[in-house]
Amino acid sequence: MGNESSYIALGLKVWKTQIDRADKLFGSLSSEEVLREIAPGRNRLLYLWGHLTATHDAMLPLLGLRDRLHPEFDVAFIANPDKSQATIPSHEQVHRAWNAVNGELQKGFERMSSSEWLQRHSAVSEEDFSKDASRNRFSILLSRTNHLSYHFGQAVLGLKDRA
Amino acid sequence: MGNESSYIALGLKVWKTQIDRADKLFGSLSSEEVLREIAPGRNRLLYLWGHLTATHDAMLPLLGLRDRLHPEFDVAFIANPDKSQATIPSHEQVHRAWNAVNGELQKGFERMSSSEWLQRHSAVSEEDFSKDASRNRFSILLSRTNHLSYHFGQAVLGLKDRA
Repeated sequence: MGNESSYIALGLKVWKTQIDRADKLFGSLSSEEVLREIAPGRNRLLYLWGHLTATHDAMLPLLGLRDRLHPEFDVAFIANPDKSQATIPSHEQVHRAWNAVNGELQKGFERMSSSEWLQRHSAVSEEDFSKDASRNRFSILLSRTNHLSYHFGQAVLGLKDRA
Repeated sequence: MGNESSYIALGLKVWKTQIDRADKLFGSLSSEEVLREIAPGRNRLLYLWGHLTATHDAMLPLLGLRDRLHPEFDVAFIANPDKSQATIPSHEQVHRAWNAVNGELQKGFERMSSSEWLQRHSAVSEEDFSKDASRNRFSILLSRTNHLSYHFGQAVLGLKDRA
């Protein structure tokens, strides 16, 4: 039990480090900067930010914590590419949703016991989980942390020439 | 013990998934493509690949596995920015080193026991480790996996317009 909680604490620490870095970068964007592309013709920063918010929001039910806060973000930021929709959530809406979703996750993480981290996540059936127990909630935490790092590395490119 | 090894197996699985994705992308590059920049004026793919190789090479002593294979990569890929050196390791040298370094890491990972993963890594002193036990080998595994994802997200941008 003691050691088990060490691994969970490490997973949560790496998640928090990446969230804090992303908070700092995205939270500092002006309304002009948020519309910049990460490279010519590629995704805008607002799209990446919304995409990460929608992905994190989907973690809430996946980890058995609660219903999603912003399922409506999926049309704009998951199911369709950037610049394909007539309207998408605004800078302010994404910023608020990002904070709310990550806050709910953090609260939920603090309530989860070690045994819960090794339970199946809600997108895998009991049958499939009995064949592959690695499809658990801790694996969602690790893979979503890497998903955040992946897009954060891209977001940084959109701002290298700032200041 | 049983549960402890589940967390380690999950950490190793996420590492392996990112290595396999990077293998596939970098391993497929032509000698012309490897010199492409990820965005105008930014790092070339060869630099990112060498940077990841040097970072992974440094994990060998950090995890107590063995001496580095390619300490000479640091001048070209860690200590200095891209396009600042008269000569850097070639495409073939980076490719061979990438395979060798990740192969050594994989062999080392398979030999490590659960208790070794929670031991201090070699860049932290015993005294500092006694104050913060999270500075262990498992934390190196998680943070280097995220470092790989971060740069992989950038590398993908250099190739989006490839067939």
